[in-house]
Amino acid sequence: MVTSKTTVEIINIGDEILIGQIVNTNASWMANTMNNSGFSVTKVTVIADEKDAILQNLHNALNRADIILLTGGLGPTNDDITKHALAEYFNSELKIDKEALQNVTELFASRKIELTEINRLQAELPVVCSAIKNSNGTAPGMWFEKEGKIVVSMPGVPMEMKGIMTDYVIPKLKIFFVTEEIVHKTIMTHGIGESHLAEAIKEWEDALPENIKLAYLPRPGIVRLRLSSKGNDRKSIIHEINNKIQELIFTIPEYIFGYDDITLEEAVGCLLKKNSATISTAESCTGGTIAQKLTRIPGSSEYFKGSVVAYANEIKENLLKVSGDDLEKQGAVSQQVVEQMATGVRELFNTDYAISTSGIAGPDGGTPDKPVGTIWIAVASKNEVKSKLFHLGNNRERNIERSALSGLNMVRQFLTD
Amino acid sequence: MVTSKTTVEIINIGDEILIGQIVNTNASWMANTMNNSGFSVTKVTVIADEKDAILQNLHNALNRADIILLTGGLGPTNDDITKHALAEYFNSELKIDKEALQNVTELFASRKIELTEINRLQAELPVVCSAIKNSNGTAPGMWFEKEGKIVVSMPGVPMEMKGIMTDYVIPKLKIFFVTEEIVHKTIMTHGIGESHLAEAIKEWEDALPENIKLAYLPRPGIVRLRLSSKGNDRKSIIHEINNKIQELIFTIPEYIFGYDDITLEEAVGCLLKKNSATISTAESCTGGTIAQKLTRIPGSSEYFKGSVVAYANEIKENLLKVSGDDLEKQGAVSQQVVEQMATGVRELFNTDYAISTSGIAGPDGGTPDKPVGTIWIAVASKNEVKSKLFHLGNNRERNIERSALSGLNMVRQFLTD
Repeated sequence: MVTSKTTVEIINIGDEILIGQIVNTNASWMANTMNNSGFSVTKVTVIADEKDAILQNLHNALNRADIILLTGGLGPTNDDITKHALAEYFNSELKIDKEALQNVTELFASRKIELTEINRLQAELPVVCSAIKNSNGTAPGMWFEKEGKIVVSMPGVPMEMKGIMTDYVIPKLKIFFVTEEIVHKTIMTHGIGESHLAEAIKEWEDALPENIKLAYLPRPGIVRLRLSSKGNDRKSIIHEINNKIQELIFTIPEYIFGYDDITLEEAVGCLLKKNSATISTAESCTGGTIAQKLTRIPGSSEYFKGSVVAYANEIKENLLKVSGDDLEKQGAVSQQVVEQMATGVRELFNTDYAISTSGIAGPDGGTPDKPVGTIWIAVASKNEVKSKLFHLGNNRERNIERSALSGLNMVRQFLTD
Repeated sequence: MVTSKTTVEIINIGDEILIGQIVNTNASWMANTMNNSGFSVTKVTVIADEKDAILQNLHNALNRADIILLTGGLGPTNDDITKHALAEYFNSELKIDKEALQNVTELFASRKIELTEINRLQAELPVVCSAIKNSNGTAPGMWFEKEGKIVVSMPGVPMEMKGIMTDYVIPKLKIFFVTEEIVHKTIMTHGIGESHLAEAIKEWEDALPENIKLAYLPRPGIVRLRLSSKGNDRKSIIHEINNKIQELIFTIPEYIFGYDDITLEEAVGCLLKKNSATISTAESCTGGTIAQKLTRIPGSSEYFKGSVVAYANEIKENLLKVSGDDLEKQGAVSQQVVEQMATGVRELFNTDYAISTSGIAGPDGGTPDKPVGTIWIAVASKNEVKSKLFHLGNNRERNIERSALSGLNMVRQFLTD
């Protein structure tokens, strides 16, 4: 039982992160999870698969923080050396842990794969640690205690680390430390850039009380506003933040589509479910991205029926019944065509709503008349079609992403009107 | 002109990373870019938007490394304090930089948006730094020199940071430092897990010379093998690595689909182009993910015609001409249905090849007979249909991703046979 502000440092070990071959998604997931559990992550460090680097950084981190979470370097192969570094740091010999060995043996049996010698050696652990069961892989986690501080070592494979954190590390840390309450609340906006949003809510922002921090978190097509506050009384913090959000809704109602990292496709999915309505998409420049976003949500088959990705003009004409005359005279990237795509797919799949996209994502294909970034999007219901022209930028991936989000937002507005 | 092994530390500033609200993709991009330019990234640190943290970590990093790259905290809003910390560290006052002001003014004019006062203040910079033009945003970068070492501060918005790094920082650093040659070569494999791959190539791995390092980099459906070597003679390093890769191709020809982070969809795209062939997809459980992957590639309209995302059974039956009898008796997740989906979409869109998927991605929808993770995938050409049953896991996103990759790999094998 230690202080009320328990600090955490994350150390991710892996040459593959330092040379930039993989993105360190582990750190963000771990930071988010620790934060939501009331711990304060003060630093993330990424270092090489080198014993000296591990020993040095672990030593420094233990001088500053209460909890050190390590990932990486526990694989079965020769480049994995974290376990040996920890054995040296805690001055403890390596021995086969019986339970860990049984676990890895069972895992291989269930997958009907032969247990290899290098996988067997993964059950060798420093004697002073408590082994942590890894339900999703072969390398066990390790829990060390030192002068009231905790060091946890986990595999770098995200699914394995997440299982160990959720099932074991968080519950055990919550027993070990009394944590301060931290409340974050995020407001999701679409349709306004960061600096104009800041102007629009300046008065509200200036009037925020000292203890509430505001952050602007932009990503393509979306700006998130994060309000954070710490204290001992969770209920009163939440109450105070919620009041501020009510004021904000009053200030910029047209830009807010949800809270706490809800995605636009989730917001749309909720609205469709509530209205017992169905949807389909006809996608040209977004190439299936709207369908992919919608179907990523478990249970989306309840409201999503299907899509036609109509990259070729003949598909627009033959399947979606777009007028050949309009395709020729107005071009595929035109109001006429995108509206016919939306009504065409809605009728073809017999859905209540439909979204369609047609645009020039780039990098090639632009003309003086219709430069790269020219995107038409339409939304159709039984009685109405709405369409909108967007002038986006030159980056293909960004254009696809922003078009998909704008299409989803148009149908969201349709459903909330 | 300094040593031959120039070290770099990256410091990413931002509460949003420490609470896990965003993934630190900047670090991986920067690390990758620096590495490819012959610099050695030895550490990545993520810290809070706090002046003390910035000062302390910058000080320590400068004691260890030759180059410090900072991102974040340069936005127009009140939570951005990096510039003030740097002014204090370098003991330099802030003044409006004329060129920077002109740049931000022009940027706003070109977007036909009014220049706000807070954006104007972004042109205020510490007097001792050289301003770096930001072509994609309002916050200029800053270049500081101190006792032969370099400190660069850049905005955290990925596109802005990337522009500054590419156009200015890398070229200028290459003049400032003589760099050691680092060569990485990555072999992309699909269809075999990490530990079995390690067994399969053990002899080859054990015979690698001392100076070549091997790393296993697993991600869902793919294991990447990275060979790295350093030295002064780039040509001879590349020659040595290429010889080793030739041996590896001989050892595991069936699992290698390409090199250097090529994606499966790029490999498929190249093969289709080479054969002047076209493709379409009929996707149930993958919900458009294969189409989305294929269309992410610029110029994919040359070989990709379109997709039917057939989530509802009626679409499989009416549009793809799957037998209603088979749908009822065998179920949507069956060999009969997935094969008819592939031939159906191939004929509907008149393409040379087609991929289809039908499976239970989860988390719900499993039965004792067909548990979550049961996925059928088919590939059709004019004369042949091949199908394959996969038993994947319980994680929806992973199942979708692995199914999409497996479908792409099946068509790749079809095209290389």
